[in-house]
Amino acid sequence: MSNVRYHYDVIVIGAGHAGTEAAAASARLGARTALLTTNLDTVGQMSCNPAIGGVAKGQIVREVDALGGLMGQAIDATGIQFRLLNVRKGPAMHSPRAQADKRGYQQHIKLAIESQAGLDLRQETVDDLITVEETDPDAIERGVRHRVVGVKVRGDAEYLAPTVVLTTGTFLQAIMHTGMSTTAGGRAGEGTTQGISGALGRLGFEIDRFKTGTPPRLNAKTIDFAALDVQPGDAVPNPFSFMSGKLDVQQMPCHLTYTNENVHQLIRDNLDRAPMYSGRIESRGPRYCPSIEDKIVRFADKSEHQLFLEPEGRQTHEVYVNGISTSLPRDVQDQMFPLIAGCEKAQIMRYGYAVEYDFCPPTQLWPHLETKTVAGLFFAGQINGTTGYEEAAGQGLIAGLNAARLVAGQSTWVPSRDQAYIGVLVDDLVTAGTDEPYRMFTSRAEFRLLLRQDNADRRLTPIANELGLIDSPRRQRFDDKKKQIEHAMDLLKKIRVDGTPGDVYLRRSEVDWDVMRGVAPELSAIDDEAAQQCLYDIKYEGYITRQKADVEKQRRHADKKIPASFDYLSIDALRIEAKEKLNRVRPVSLDQAKRISGITPADLALVLAHLENRS
Amino acid sequence: MSNVRYHYDVIVIGAGHAGTEAAAASARLGARTALLTTNLDTVGQMSCNPAIGGVAKGQIVREVDALGGLMGQAIDATGIQFRLLNVRKGPAMHSPRAQADKRGYQQHIKLAIESQAGLDLRQETVDDLITVEETDPDAIERGVRHRVVGVKVRGDAEYLAPTVVLTTGTFLQAIMHTGMSTTAGGRAGEGTTQGISGALGRLGFEIDRFKTGTPPRLNAKTIDFAALDVQPGDAVPNPFSFMSGKLDVQQMPCHLTYTNENVHQLIRDNLDRAPMYSGRIESRGPRYCPSIEDKIVRFADKSEHQLFLEPEGRQTHEVYVNGISTSLPRDVQDQMFPLIAGCEKAQIMRYGYAVEYDFCPPTQLWPHLETKTVAGLFFAGQINGTTGYEEAAGQGLIAGLNAARLVAGQSTWVPSRDQAYIGVLVDDLVTAGTDEPYRMFTSRAEFRLLLRQDNADRRLTPIANELGLIDSPRRQRFDDKKKQIEHAMDLLKKIRVDGTPGDVYLRRSEVDWDVMRGVAPELSAIDDEAAQQCLYDIKYEGYITRQKADVEKQRRHADKKIPASFDYLSIDALRIEAKEKLNRVRPVSLDQAKRISGITPADLALVLAHLENRS
Ligand SMILES: Cc1cc2nc3c(=O)[nH]c(=O)nc-3n(C[C@H](O)[C@H](O)[C@H](O)COP(=O)(O)OP(=O)(O)OC[C@H]3O[C@@H](n4cnc5c(N)ncnc54)[C@H](O)[C@@H]3O)c2cc1C
Ligand SMILES: Cc1cc2nc3c(=O)[nH]c(=O)nc-3n(C[C@H](O)[C@H](O)[C@H](O)COP(=O)(O)OP(=O)(O)OC[C@H]3O[C@@H](n4cnc5c(N)ncnc54)[C@H](O)[C@@H]3O)c2cc1C
Repeated sequence: MSNVRYHYDVIVIGAGHAGTEAAAASARLGARTALLTTNLDTVGQMSCNPAIGGVAKGQIVREVDALGGLMGQAIDATGIQFRLLNVRKGPAMHSPRAQADKRGYQQHIKLAIESQAGLDLRQETVDDLITVEETDPDAIERGVRHRVVGVKVRGDAEYLAPTVVLTTGTFLQAIMHTGMSTTAGGRAGEGTTQGISGALGRLGFEIDRFKTGTPPRLNAKTIDFAALDVQPGDAVPNPFSFMSGKLDVQQMPCHLTYTNENVHQLIRDNLDRAPMYSGRIESRGPRYCPSIEDKIVRFADKSEHQLFLEPEGRQTHEVYVNGISTSLPRDVQDQMFPLIAGCEKAQIMRYGYAVEYDFCPPTQLWPHLETKTVAGLFFAGQINGTTGYEEAAGQGLIAGLNAARLVAGQSTWVPSRDQAYIGVLVDDLVTAGTDEPYRMFTSRAEFRLLLRQDNADRRLTPIANELGLIDSPRRQRFDDKKKQIEHAMDLLKKIRVDGTPGDVYLRRSEVDWDVMRGVAPELSAIDDEAAQQCLYDIKYEGYITRQKADVEKQRRHADKKIPASFDYLSIDALRIEAKEKLNRVRPVSLDQAKRISGITPADLALVLAHLENRS
Repeated sequence: MSNVRYHYDVIVIGAGHAGTEAAAASARLGARTALLTTNLDTVGQMSCNPAIGGVAKGQIVREVDALGGLMGQAIDATGIQFRLLNVRKGPAMHSPRAQADKRGYQQHIKLAIESQAGLDLRQETVDDLITVEETDPDAIERGVRHRVVGVKVRGDAEYLAPTVVLTTGTFLQAIMHTGMSTTAGGRAGEGTTQGISGALGRLGFEIDRFKTGTPPRLNAKTIDFAALDVQPGDAVPNPFSFMSGKLDVQQMPCHLTYTNENVHQLIRDNLDRAPMYSGRIESRGPRYCPSIEDKIVRFADKSEHQLFLEPEGRQTHEVYVNGISTSLPRDVQDQMFPLIAGCEKAQIMRYGYAVEYDFCPPTQLWPHLETKTVAGLFFAGQINGTTGYEEAAGQGLIAGLNAARLVAGQSTWVPSRDQAYIGVLVDDLVTAGTDEPYRMFTSRAEFRLLLRQDNADRRLTPIANELGLIDSPRRQRFDDKKKQIEHAMDLLKKIRVDGTPGDVYLRRSEVDWDVMRGVAPELSAIDDEAAQQCLYDIKYEGYITRQKADVEKQRRHADKKIPASFDYLSIDALRIEAKEKLNRVRPVSLDQAKRISGITPADLALVLAHLENRS
């Protein structure tokens, strides 16, 4: 037993994207919180791509922000290029994405953590979990076997708390691969942690292995950008945080290049030396973030793949090559770039590698991310089999807030699938689990039109306010916006255009806000944010109602039979993953389909719609 | 044998303060240079105090800058508080020092390296040195046994080059201590390297062990600064680089606090748990950067010790507690701060620790820092038994430039003791070695008045120009300054004050430049830099001449006998280290005194002067 003990309400292990949000949320709720992490210089570090957001992920960031989290303000303060993706599609698909100044982002998150009252950030390596046998008969009845009481850290000390949130990312028993060479470690240049995996095994958790990869980094000074297409940021950058006003930012361009037949041939010739294909790595990687060797095998007919050259920050010439994640041996990486336009003389600064790591299948968790068998122990982030900073942040926030609520004797809170992508995320994880690194997609959500990036605050900030997650400036700002929207709606209902009420007139497809303002100048006083909300509320009212009805129907039709001949592949809107899985399992009923790992309510809604079309 | 090989002229291992200067100097000289380091995120990282310069160290930074090095411009760009120390003493003692934004400094150095043409910065861990037996009879005659041909890196690849500069700092077989707890690693949160120590042993190098320590870091939000004295920066910040114009910088204050009897008692009560006193660490630490436990034992009569609370940067609340480096167990560190004014509620973010590491006694080197027994292999920085960023940078520059010159078939160049502190540094190291971590002091230099911080460019930039180390903007700037000085000197000689030539008049003790300008308005056109140089050249001419004569005399008097009764302790100006050593050994002659490890020509000059006084 150690002679040094520290007492907290909530202990968070690991200050990555999950851990920082977990700790901040817990402390905001008034729980005395310790955030313990191996190296204070890597708090909030981006292990891989220097970007936040993207399709469906951007929505999560907006939700994290609406709930008072850190990620949105951090990227707004340190972004170097902002783009709203899918602007030509409907608003449900609009997704903010930004390139970050990687180091600046990391420093911003660290400073936010250091500034949070009630939160102690300490450089500590956690070596073990401390648990006791569960004795409460009610808990045992629910399947609980142990109860966490704290953690042991290196240097013979203990942190004691009734709740512990584990967010160690890719660091559990991690092995990095570059070709046939392997090194222990969760991120190049750093170590691995074994003690915790041992503890998880001892506590009876099922542990599985996944892999992920990262591309090489090049020195910008050695790239011929003149030969390449430029991808600039949006003229008017869209902020992630509902607290950010207009962003005043000098944006940096990205550049585009492509692989080609020569590159593909080189890779094909060396596939036997790729750890994945040589059988050295058997664990599964992220299907939607495939390595270049995966892409070349899986999409054998494609003659080129797009590569984005993304600057890693303002203070560095390092360039992230998005699209060419690889664990091929270094000599293949060396030979690859001379074949790629603009990169003929590119100098590799860091080689790409793959990392294999332990994760705990998330079906072992309650929706609020507490483990089912160890009371008080929460898991969040990549340890749950997800991938991505945003997915980690969303889970972190949920775990942190529920850990704090548990300590305070309050009930758990988790957003539902129609409230937030974060709700979809935790529901998918804990009900269906995942057999490959899970990332968010809009197609995983059946209430896409409700879960827009633009209305995340309207969906979640009032709840966050009740939970005590937000501060008064945010409350004030939200209330002001709400009043503006109500005022605008009133105005719209009052005014008449050709005798038609404004809100009815606005439904017409050819009428947008500019048109409205032209015919009703009194609308000019309405600010853009409020105008946008009115516009979407009115324009999409019908769709939203229908979407809700569809899912209701699906719930009712759970026992609906699926004919053996049913052709999943012909359902265009169905995710590739869902197509493959349904086609393989060929479930006899919707109910059976629902229980297939990775099949979401959104997939079921599509299948049901097609079943009904057939009949 | 590896299937992947890269070819370079110069390979530098480790991108700390020595390695970055070495690589930059080598590349500036046109050698194809590779800088290999474990983690690209720690290039130029400050392991310990967030400050550059200080007494004698500041002079080294000015010299590194005058030779075209990186350190001066980096700290000018990222300093948060600038002070010229010892301004009330003579100009030989003036020493610039600045607090750095630690992360900003690190990023600045990395960017400078990334921007240097001919220099490839690569994330690689070096596992072994590749050498061959030396066969050249001339070389064997000189004692050379092996010849370096390259290095092996993790991941089965080789970098081949005729010269290798090893600058791995505290990472060789490093062990960190906090109380009785030990962890392998050269810097908290990072690993250690064993392969290289193995190689050095195999090659027959003598390896010894030193230790150093670092203090805890606190969270500024938990410090009561209002209770403490403020230490602001200078009203007009003095730049380090001869290339920086006036610095436009928002300075941050430091704060002062003190230990007290209660703290001392706490430490005394726990001395048996300090690794140094419990016998767990046997290696020696830096006498002039002692741990707090050392101070309390060695200066038992002092009732307090000063502590500086130094911010680690603009983007963080971490505070470095200068003066309380410790390897005491964490519970003692926990109990210490509640006893210290202003820190009663201070939150420790990182604990202090000591690190023990391998170094190679530097008497195994030639003055140009090539090893005597392995041709082409250079050592620079902490691996040579020194301590301090500046000492590392100075050595790095010397090693890098000579490695490049060796490859180009050119003769070596090393500044002499009357040219630079860097000359004193390498001469002290290779002739006398060091039996404790070596840091620079003004007292180590016998030509202090020549080696002023203000004239480092006049001493070294012309040579740097000949060597090819500097670029044309620096050449231009230097030439302009030189012309200004010559012009000012001409003017001074021409003008008459009360019939006396200006340069003679200026010698008077009551006359300074302001007075001169009052009586000779034509001097107003002379800029401050040139005016200062004229002033010092004229004012101190006599002293400088005398100083040179003293050292000449000392050379002639090498066989001078020292009476057994000679009282070293009574020589006030003698460094404590020299007093202790001379008193212990009691040499019979100056010549014997000279051979005592750690005794410098400057010490000998003082002893000689007192010997002559006696007789
Ligand atoms: C090589 C690589 C490639 C990736 N590629 C992509 C990609 O292309 N796209 C994408 O979206 N995502 C990618 N990811 C995933 C993304 O980095 C993670 O999903 C995200 O960082 C997970 O956040 P997290 O908080 O769960 O873990 P992390 O951000 O990894 O944070 C874990 C933290 O725990 C700390 N820690 C570990 N062990 C201990 C211990 N014992 N005690 C104390 N602290 C500890 C670590 O120091 C770290 O700070 C990649 C990750 C890696 C490593
Ligand atoms: C805990 C601690 C306390 C200190 N306290 C003080 C102090 O109070 N005052 C003071 O002046 N100085 C202090 N120092 C010393 C100061 O940090 C060093 O003198 C200075 O950093 C030495 O510079 P360097 O370039 O020799 O080594 P470092 O700056 O340590 O750089 C070594 C580099 O080599 C890399 N490396 C190591 N092994 C390998 C490998 N196998 N392959 C590739 N790269 C490798 C490392 O990653 C690192 O980048 C302290 C150091 C430490 C660690």
